[in-house]
Amino acid sequence: MPDSPPATHAEDTRHMRRALALARRGLGWTDPNPMVGCVLVRDGRVVGEGFHERVGGPHAEVRALERAGEAARGATAYVTLEPCSHHGRTPPCADRLVEAGVGRVVAALVDPDERVRGRGLRRLEEAGIATESGLLAEEAEAVNAGFLSRVRSGRPWLTLKLASSLDGHTATSTGESQWITSEAARADVHRLRHAHAALLTGSGTVLADNPSLTARLPEGGAHPLRVVLDSRLRTPPGARVVTGPGGVLMVGGPGASAERRRALEAAGAEVITLEEGDGGCPALGAVLHELGRREINSVLAECGATLAGALLRGGWVDRLVAYQAPSIIGAGGLGMFEGPPIGSMAERINLRILERRGVGTDTRIVAEPHREG
Amino acid sequence: MPDSPPATHAEDTRHMRRALALARRGLGWTDPNPMVGCVLVRDGRVVGEGFHERVGGPHAEVRALERAGEAARGATAYVTLEPCSHHGRTPPCADRLVEAGVGRVVAALVDPDERVRGRGLRRLEEAGIATESGLLAEEAEAVNAGFLSRVRSGRPWLTLKLASSLDGHTATSTGESQWITSEAARADVHRLRHAHAALLTGSGTVLADNPSLTARLPEGGAHPLRVVLDSRLRTPPGARVVTGPGGVLMVGGPGASAERRRALEAAGAEVITLEEGDGGCPALGAVLHELGRREINSVLAECGATLAGALLRGGWVDRLVAYQAPSIIGAGGLGMFEGPPIGSMAERINLRILERRGVGTDTRIVAEPHREG
Repeated sequence: MPDSPPATHAEDTRHMRRALALARRGLGWTDPNPMVGCVLVRDGRVVGEGFHERVGGPHAEVRALERAGEAARGATAYVTLEPCSHHGRTPPCADRLVEAGVGRVVAALVDPDERVRGRGLRRLEEAGIATESGLLAEEAEAVNAGFLSRVRSGRPWLTLKLASSLDGHTATSTGESQWITSEAARADVHRLRHAHAALLTGSGTVLADNPSLTARLPEGGAHPLRVVLDSRLRTPPGARVVTGPGGVLMVGGPGASAERRRALEAAGAEVITLEEGDGGCPALGAVLHELGRREINSVLAECGATLAGALLRGGWVDRLVAYQAPSIIGAGGLGMFEGPPIGSMAERINLRILERRGVGTDTRIVAEPHREG
Repeated sequence: MPDSPPATHAEDTRHMRRALALARRGLGWTDPNPMVGCVLVRDGRVVGEGFHERVGGPHAEVRALERAGEAARGATAYVTLEPCSHHGRTPPCADRLVEAGVGRVVAALVDPDERVRGRGLRRLEEAGIATESGLLAEEAEAVNAGFLSRVRSGRPWLTLKLASSLDGHTATSTGESQWITSEAARADVHRLRHAHAALLTGSGTVLADNPSLTARLPEGGAHPLRVVLDSRLRTPPGARVVTGPGGVLMVGGPGASAERRRALEAAGAEVITLEEGDGGCPALGAVLHELGRREINSVLAECGATLAGALLRGGWVDRLVAYQAPSIIGAGGLGMFEGPPIGSMAERINLRILERRGVGTDTRIVAEPHREG
């Protein structure tokens, strides 16, 4: 039985907000796990806090219980996701909360993972612990958009990164593109790469720019798995995307040469072949579901206009992050999207703007495709 | 002699800021005059305020003196522009300030108009009144960018308005463009039209959309003079830009047909012919200097990609106001600028962003071309 006086809704909300802030501190390090934060409160006082810092490490609840020690008895635990009920990489957190004698558990979300799905809360209730769920659910959904997308739909959350001049060009008429955006915007892109489990690009970008596509942050970053769509396996085995840190998955088409495949594998790449979709590119649905199967929660697409167009038209884009440089390239500049042109304004893709702000001298716009009804 | 205790710099600044706010209330109504505000302060107390409300009406100083009455004696007058010393539409304000017995005059700017240029302040000094100038000069320059541009360079200040999708297209591949931006953005454009003395467009826009290009504001607006570049005078005499309120100046080339000219004049248009520049369009420098000669302080260009490109390349653009819709038109969409393509990134036009904010669902970006050293 709880020996704390009942918390008000405002107090519950404040503690859950703190738990969400803690959860976000795991950004980039917890994949394929979700980010989770936990706050233990007894008699209105925080007695323990924790978050899931890194895959393979302790869960948020365990961290918070360790810090609280005996003070956890009778406390309320605020957790951003339902405590797990199964033996995964670590023992079930629901059991640990029962053992510690907490009086009440408030979860922002029920874990949609089929190994949990309400079983964690039920285990707590069976032990006589009061439970609630749904507090700040929308914020909690946003924190784990990637994990939730993969668990619910089998495919990762996809962010499309764009960089252009104010007039929507990615390069001059001769293809020159470095550097359109400022150093500050490029540093921001490294944070995006850190925050996503995989990075999706096409062989055209690799052949044109030979980018490494790693997360280079001052404090060190988690390099995304680089995923290169390359039907004919044209990527040279010495390309930075192959030889650099973080791992690379080359996705070839059924007709890709066995010799090229062996050369890439010898250089350390994993090579798979998938069916082809429109335009001789590996079918995007198949690629994304393969990544989901590999427990990739989130993908950042940094690619040329052809792949960007195909991702957008296919409805695979969950979020756009566009960096707009304060410059005008003008006539003949390359466009941001390629593919079949639309005729009428009714066919344009509408967006909902989520954020607009300056990053260095550039404008950063975050948006999501507006899906009707 | 002033009988007020000396004002601190902070007090001076506060009163001048108020005078600038008053000046801005004349926006759109004072052309070809500058916007001017005046605050009279005695013993730390505001005793009179005024602004130049409308061309032909009283000047700001006269308004403020009327309101102050006898309290003006010994007061400090804060004026956003040097009081005039010449008989124009109204008698000289410098004389009025002397007659009223003010003790001190603080002007933000010396009036560069050749009929004034320091003579107003000198007249005051000769009457034993202390004068200062240069307080909040940068803000005062911004308020009257149009007037100052015309007086200093003989040509009006030019704002280029742009409207596009997030990926920089103004229309679909078939040319459909209505409406890219939101109603809120279009209402904002009517405020821009009100704020500018003339509106510059090309015959292509008139023929394609038959726009009226008037300032339709809920509170009533000042319609800009519509200036249409139309070398061959292709605009039909029944076009809205000709028949609508506010006046229209058609700029034809030397070879324009006399018959078309007569038809346009019969419909109420003024028609002039000017030398042609690149691409058969009237030479932009000649057009802008002709407008300057006509005492047009400011021009809003709302035009197609060809004229927009020529204005930008020619260095005629003082400010860009870009409305970006939350939509993607994609491949084949029409670009914002036409003209000779650039090859290298070094040739792009760099901008300085002055403002970015949401207007309805659109993003509004205000920028100025970045002129090196």
